[in-house]
Amino acid sequence: MKGCFVTFEGADGAGKTTQIKLLYEFLREQGHNVLLTREPGGTGISDSIRALLLDPKNSEMRHQTEVLLYAASRAQHVREKIIPALEEGKIVLCDRFVDASLAYQGYGLGLPLEEIININQFATGGLTPDITYFLDLPAEISRERLKQRFAAYKGPDRIESKPAEYHQKVRQGFAEICRKYADRIVKINAARSIETIQKEVRDHFLHYLTNRQ
Amino acid sequence: MKGCFVTFEGADGAGKTTQIKLLYEFLREQGHNVLLTREPGGTGISDSIRALLLDPKNSEMRHQTEVLLYAASRAQHVREKIIPALEEGKIVLCDRFVDASLAYQGYGLGLPLEEIININQFATGGLTPDITYFLDLPAEISRERLKQRFAAYKGPDRIESKPAEYHQKVRQGFAEICRKYADRIVKINAARSIETIQKEVRDHFLHYLTNRQ
Repeated sequence: MKGCFVTFEGADGAGKTTQIKLLYEFLREQGHNVLLTREPGGTGISDSIRALLLDPKNSEMRHQTEVLLYAASRAQHVREKIIPALEEGKIVLCDRFVDASLAYQGYGLGLPLEEIININQFATGGLTPDITYFLDLPAEISRERLKQRFAAYKGPDRIESKPAEYHQKVRQGFAEICRKYADRIVKINAARSIETIQKEVRDHFLHYLTNRQ
Repeated sequence: MKGCFVTFEGADGAGKTTQIKLLYEFLREQGHNVLLTREPGGTGISDSIRALLLDPKNSEMRHQTEVLLYAASRAQHVREKIIPALEEGKIVLCDRFVDASLAYQGYGLGLPLEEIININQFATGGLTPDITYFLDLPAEISRERLKQRFAAYKGPDRIESKPAEYHQKVRQGFAEICRKYADRIVKINAARSIETIQKEVRDHFLHYLTNRQ
């Protein structure tokens, strides 16, 4: 595959969506062919699955259902959108991917990691990011940012409204994932200004692209 | 688990839905505590997934997405509805279950059976029917019945409108599944009158229930 597959991960409120958009605009201005996408979602079918996953009405959803719906959304997204873009040589920037399932469902919900890895291997056909930026933020700052976000427009979705203990397990999960996949995951200190974080991401990615070609 | 889990399988047009409803009514009249349900579907969340799966608009759906959506729907159905009913000692009659995924997705779509088995094992937590009635119908009769059904009210759904070659593979798949799980699956000749088929199913099931207790 000629393209480059880049994912952004981190807890809710770490600034992923802001940073990935800024990187997208920067790379386009530089003349790169870039696709910006997100999970869950990214295609018509995946967006329908996303709506099911995030609807606070679906409080009866079982953990296994959640794992399989995320994987279903991902299977469609990878095959309908990400792989075709990579084959056209594009840089694909994706907001969340398999690491998020491992952190939220494996570590957060306490389901067996091995099974989640196998199900996602089936979903993605083995597609792995070339590079992953993990936005690392202390729990207190993350919580404070989320509180402001909910106050500003709307309440939390079904995942965001889970208890603090769950979010703590997710954080520990991300820390272990960062250690396990240290060759692929770049940790970014997200407790700084948007501009400082963006500069570090840009510099790192341009350096990566140059050395890769 | 105190209850009894009974599934009905067979190609589209074999008469599953008619037969399972007749058995349900008969068992209720006999004083049994019975739950009648179906897949995909059976709960609010599962019905939303069912709508995605069967919508002819979703023609872009990839095979892996389909497998994972059926499994997600099943995970919810098993945990929210089937297991609680079995724990209450009910007879659960379910229109389609894992065998259908093996036949339609494994054999029909040509995906690795081992992976579909593993994903469904995760979805169901290992729940297996106590007994399965397979309604066996020659391909020509099945096709003719479906044609009449579509003419009578509406066109085929997304699965039903797949090519004849696919349905042929599904048939062969069901035949192999019947051989593999011969201790659980009872083959019923479905090329007979509704009454004759129903009598055979009833007699068999009452005999099974008596010998089981």
